[in-house]
Parts: sequence; C-alpha cells; structure tokens
Amino acid sequence: MPRKVDTHQRRTRIADALMRVAAEQGLEAVSLRHVAAEAGVSAGMVQHYFRTKDEMMGFAMSVVRDRTQARVTEAIARLGAEPAPRLLLRTVITAILPLDEEARDVGRVALAFLAYTAVRPAAASALREDTAGMTAFIAGLLSVADPEPAAAGLLALMEGLGVYLLGGHYTAEQALAALDDQLDRLFP
Amino acid sequence: MPRKVDTHQRRTRIADALMRVAAEQGLEAVSLRHVAAEAGVSAGMVQHYFRTKDEMMGFAMSVVRDRTQARVTEAIARLGAEPAPRLLLRTVITAILPLDEEARDVGRVALAFLAYTAVRPAAASALREDTAGMTAFIAGLLSVADPEPAAAGLLALMEGLGVYLLGGHYTAEQALAALDDQLDRLFP
Repeated sequence: MPRKVDTHQRRTRIADALMRVAAEQGLEAVSLRHVAAEAGVSAGMVQHYFRTKDEMMGFAMSVVRDRTQARVTEAIARLGAEPAPRLLLRTVITAILPLDEEARDVGRVALAFLAYTAVRPAAASALREDTAGMTAFIAGLLSVADPEPAAAGLLALMEGLGVYLLGGHYTAEQALAALDDQLDRLFP
Repeated sequence: MPRKVDTHQRRTRIADALMRVAAEQGLEAVSLRHVAAEAGVSAGMVQHYFRTKDEMMGFAMSVVRDRTQARVTEAIARLGAEPAPRLLLRTVITAILPLDEEARDVGRVALAFLAYTAVRPAAASALREDTAGMTAFIAGLLSVADPEPAAAGLLALMEGLGVYLLGGHYTAEQALAALDDQLDRLFP
C-alpha cells in the first residue's frame, strides 16, 4: 500500500514539474535535468518515467488528458442532474478552453504536443481517439438535421478558440462571444 | 541589380530548405547546420538570415505568411470579378487549410510557431494583427445580425480544422463537410 501511494505521489510531483517547465519555456525546451531540478528529485528518478524525448512527450500528453478529463468531470458534476444539451455542451467546452491559469498550462502543453504530432502522426493515435469520442459525444447532443459535420465544426471551433486564446489573438470575452454565437446557431 | 536577385534567390533557397527540414522533423528540431546542409550553402550564409533561435522562428513565420498570402491571392484571382461572399470566403479558407502537400508544409510550420508563441506571447504580434485583419475581412462578408462573433467563430473553426487535418484527426472530406455545414449556417 505505502509503495503504491509513493509511486502515485512521485508521478504527480514529476508531472506537475513537467507542466510548470513546459508552460514557462515550451515543451520543446524541456529536458530531464530541467524537470528533475523543478521537481526536486534526481534525474534518474525522472528517467524512470521517460527515457526518451518521445516517452516524455507521451507522458506530458497523458498528464494533459488526465487533467482535462478531471476538469470536465468536475464541471459536469456541478451541473446537477440532467442538464439541457446546450448547457452541458457549453460547460464541457468552457472547462477545456484555456480561460484560467491551470487550463492555460494544460493548453500550452497540448498545443506543443499537437505541433509535435503534426510531424509524427504515429504518436497521435490516442489524440485521434479523443477527437472521435468528442465528436460522437457532441453529435449526440445536437438536434440539427446533419449532426456529424456540425459536431466536427463545433469541436474545431473549440480547438481554434483555444489556439487563439493561448496566443493572445482573442480575449476571453471574444472567445466566449464566438462560442455562444455558435451555440445560438446550433440550438435556435 | 544582379546583387538584389542573388539575395532574393538565396533567401528563397534558405526558406525552402527551412520549410523542408521543419516539415519533416518539426520546427523545434531545426538547427542552422541542418538548414545549411539542406540548402547546400554554408552555415555562415544561413546565419546571415537568422543569428538566434528567435530570429529563425521569426524568419520561418515570415515565410509562412508570404506563402499563405500568395496562395490566397492566386485562389482569389482564379475566381474572376465580383465573386459572391460565400464563394469568396470558401475560396480563401480552402486556400489556407492544409489540404495539399504545400499547404501541409506551411501549416506544420505555422502550428509549431503558434505553440512557440503560446509561451512567448511577445513574438506573436504580427500573427495577432493577421488574425484581427482576417476577422474584419470575414465580418465584412457576412450579412448576419452580429457579424463580429460569427467571424471570430468561423476563423477559429478554420484554425481548428487545420490542426485536426495536420494531426490526421479529420480527413479532408470531414473538414470540408464541417466547413460547408458552417457556411450553410452563415449564408442560409
């Protein structure tokens, strides 16, 4: 039992350090030594979790997915029983968008990973499954005539809003206005 | 005169080499030596164009902007005089989306630059101006009641489609279906 707790705590500590370093300097600048120093552990300990750059990127992405999933689950739990489809969709999307510091840190790492997988498509199979799962989830909540392309479009809009929020192209107000405008169009 | 032509040719040659290396290995992996070897010139020659990583990233982004602008201008020219707003918008967006190899190479570099500027917002001022210019251009073509958020949403949708096309999350058919579905909604 204590062994398992130790492993989980250590993993979380290294994950936190990795996210902080990546959020400040970019994922491409992250090294084993960096993350070890930030976490206050040995480089050997960090190496236990990822031996190569690819393993480190995979680990970073698994942290991003876990944290995003946790944010979405918490946000849905706060809604109570049987929320209306529009409210449910808006809640999920705003939980994912980089609108607070935690989500921005996660978003920066996710964006770096997307850029990384754009030249190494093999590394992106888990992400592609997430995208397919999200479009199916969104399509199930829409009552438009042709839900598949509408769902694919809404998910792409969310992704683009995230990119523009992270780069400071859109303010939070602009991004939320664009999202609400789209939801108004999908739920007339 | 010959001097100016030489400079332009050399710049284009180095830009081509940079785009090829970045498209294959990712922008974060690009080094002076890499680009020089690919271009068949000396490292000193490449260094004439960018001395630091930041200058190289800026140079890569200026190439992306030039090539995107050229693609858009050519696509619009093929339309002839006074195209309908919907057709004009679709033409501009599909010229930018990574739907052929040239646009994919440009898109991979653009995505890497977006990830880079997400941790260094100061480097993104030209991109932010481009985004503002594009939303104003799109808003001017829409006849919906509230064109600003609709334009911001359509641009975000385009950006997200680009990210999902590069990562292989969406096929070209899925991306174009999502785009057309959105244009149908904006031009009923």
